[in-house]
Amino acid sequence: MISLRRSPEKVRLPLGFSFSAVPAGIKVSGMPDLALAEAAEGATAAALFTQNRVVAAPVEVGRAGLLSSRYRVRAVLVNSGNANCATGRVGIQACQQICRETATALGASANEIFPSSTGIIGVPLSPEKITVQLPKLIAARSANQRGVLAFAHAIMTTDTRAKIASARFRAGAGNVTMLGIAKGAGMIHPQLATMLVYLFTDVEASATELRPLLRAACDSSLNCMSIDGDTSTNDTVLLLASGASGVRLKDAGSRKKFAGALNAVCQSLAEQIISDGEGVQHVICLFVEQASSREEALLVARTIAHSMLVKTAWAGADPNWGRILAAVGRSGAPVDPSRVQIYIGKQKVCRNGVACPFNERQAHHILGQPVCDIRVQLGRGRYAVRFLTTDLTAEYVRINADYST
Amino acid sequence: MISLRRSPEKVRLPLGFSFSAVPAGIKVSGMPDLALAEAAEGATAAALFTQNRVVAAPVEVGRAGLLSSRYRVRAVLVNSGNANCATGRVGIQACQQICRETATALGASANEIFPSSTGIIGVPLSPEKITVQLPKLIAARSANQRGVLAFAHAIMTTDTRAKIASARFRAGAGNVTMLGIAKGAGMIHPQLATMLVYLFTDVEASATELRPLLRAACDSSLNCMSIDGDTSTNDTVLLLASGASGVRLKDAGSRKKFAGALNAVCQSLAEQIISDGEGVQHVICLFVEQASSREEALLVARTIAHSMLVKTAWAGADPNWGRILAAVGRSGAPVDPSRVQIYIGKQKVCRNGVACPFNERQAHHILGQPVCDIRVQLGRGRYAVRFLTTDLTAEYVRINADYST
Repeated sequence: MISLRRSPEKVRLPLGFSFSAVPAGIKVSGMPDLALAEAAEGATAAALFTQNRVVAAPVEVGRAGLLSSRYRVRAVLVNSGNANCATGRVGIQACQQICRETATALGASANEIFPSSTGIIGVPLSPEKITVQLPKLIAARSANQRGVLAFAHAIMTTDTRAKIASARFRAGAGNVTMLGIAKGAGMIHPQLATMLVYLFTDVEASATELRPLLRAACDSSLNCMSIDGDTSTNDTVLLLASGASGVRLKDAGSRKKFAGALNAVCQSLAEQIISDGEGVQHVICLFVEQASSREEALLVARTIAHSMLVKTAWAGADPNWGRILAAVGRSGAPVDPSRVQIYIGKQKVCRNGVACPFNERQAHHILGQPVCDIRVQLGRGRYAVRFLTTDLTAEYVRINADYST
Repeated sequence: MISLRRSPEKVRLPLGFSFSAVPAGIKVSGMPDLALAEAAEGATAAALFTQNRVVAAPVEVGRAGLLSSRYRVRAVLVNSGNANCATGRVGIQACQQICRETATALGASANEIFPSSTGIIGVPLSPEKITVQLPKLIAARSANQRGVLAFAHAIMTTDTRAKIASARFRAGAGNVTMLGIAKGAGMIHPQLATMLVYLFTDVEASATELRPLLRAACDSSLNCMSIDGDTSTNDTVLLLASGASGVRLKDAGSRKKFAGALNAVCQSLAEQIISDGEGVQHVICLFVEQASSREEALLVARTIAHSMLVKTAWAGADPNWGRILAAVGRSGAPVDPSRVQIYIGKQKVCRNGVACPFNERQAHHILGQPVCDIRVQLGRGRYAVRFLTTDLTAEYVRINADYST
């Protein structure tokens, strides 16, 4: 098990939410695959979705629901095992039917039910498999750690472990809690969002207040990572604020604390997703520095992170920095190779675009660790990015060579 | 062994060239790694080079040599086992020294010697290892099939077989012959050129006549393929015309025949490179059709061809077309998913962006063949591209996880 942090802290629960999960027979394994998070008094919402032009039915329905409810959410309903994507009109209708019946059962309106799906693309999703389980799912709600764990496990697909992070801060007389739950291990190259991430807080804030904070937190965490370069059709990040703490974001100090908690939770979830990437043996913290803009740093980071030759070298703990330099050169950034420095761990391995003497055995050892830093300096400016990525192993191939058949 | 064509035809030799190869101890294996192709009376040249901003020393030296010699080449000298890239000033000097000493031995000037290197990046190349072998290499020249095979084998790195194609056509009273020799099995995503490709012809033509013909032939063959998306730092395509046939390209008819022979040889070499890709089990002929421009068709084709999820599905002969659709959606082309059709072999598997019933067993069988056609129609225009690519197998990972160490 790879971990970028020490053992996960205790899960802290925000007020105003309850959680549950049941098996609905969508996953072939028979494991729980239907999850509910309810805000009994409702919550304000901010959301980010995939930039893929192919979007799944729940993304379309969820986005429309947020607009028509004015970013008011009563419950999140997630199924795993089927992405309900490329399923056409029938897929949209199935999703709408699920939202309607959930709303009736909870005494809400359909546009206050936020739907999500994850799993295989292009297979029809049976709404009945889900709706028949709603009474049991609703009865099982609980506002405790058991409910959170049940929710986190039920949204998993090829994930090997649940991904949960939480934070709490004091603001005036009250406490604000932030809880994040995510899934994702493949098709991970989020563009404005990642696979499925749910963030729950009991702060009292409007959708307009939440939106820029969510965007900023995601840009530096979930949008700075890639496992395989494939941007999913179902990527969703949803932030819900129940207001149950009674604390408002009324001053700069509390907004800063809130942004800090949100950033910390998103960063932890990003690290948990990367560490659990399909077949991953080594996580790479890739620092691209001295770029002329943040976009340029990201362009170079993504080209390195998506190079099959670089990723396979990492799988072998091979300090073959020439492949990294070649990826920099083809990235599209107008880089002058004679200004490029590359480090593996703390050792410089490429000086001014040219080989420099280094301890190969030590570089091999550093790359053999579960987590390794690689630093690429472009010599062009003052922008930098920290990008999380992974090696490409034979196990990744095995996992993905027989997913649907 | 995967082959897109029936067994390779007999090798035809153009007049005016001789070939040889010897071992120079650059490859650890001790196999021949130094190759010479000489045009005793000289040849006119056209060349294309990598678009990578990191370029190897021989690419810099070779490009400068062509400019100063006005595209006149007397000999091509290639070493495998070391790319002489990211080796700085010392690498340039080593390459220049090799060219100078070869020129002296052949009675030519240094800028008429075209150098190439292929192999690991970032390791200094010893010029002495090469220059000490020059007398033996020059003595071994022969203008027959044995010489051609020796050259073709000596330029190989991870290739498992030599890549040779030839064509001959009649023009007026004479015959024109075209011979192509290539290497490449990894770091194959040529941008204007591919790894190392040498084309020899005995037509009489100026560099100005050759250049547009070479560009057109490469654009539809070597530039329409990818194994791993990594564009090499050493990519070179060189076309040499000895003029020894006495046939000139003086009318539209002979130019058309010449272009046809050049296209056929380039296409055959592209197919041979793809078929011999590292760890490749399945070659995919990807047809992207109904694009609004050729660039758009290429953008979509490359995004599909570089998707690790799509390539691993192909490795498992898995008809998981949802991953192809997701790649189309994230390609950056403004595609409307509801106009997209996808075929595996002759079967439609996705109609208007949505699942349609198909025979999964048959699709699995078709994908299990060494070569399979996949067709993606975008519903946007009349441009199309045929793009050659491969699956991504555990064997690719094995080959590339321990190259340098």
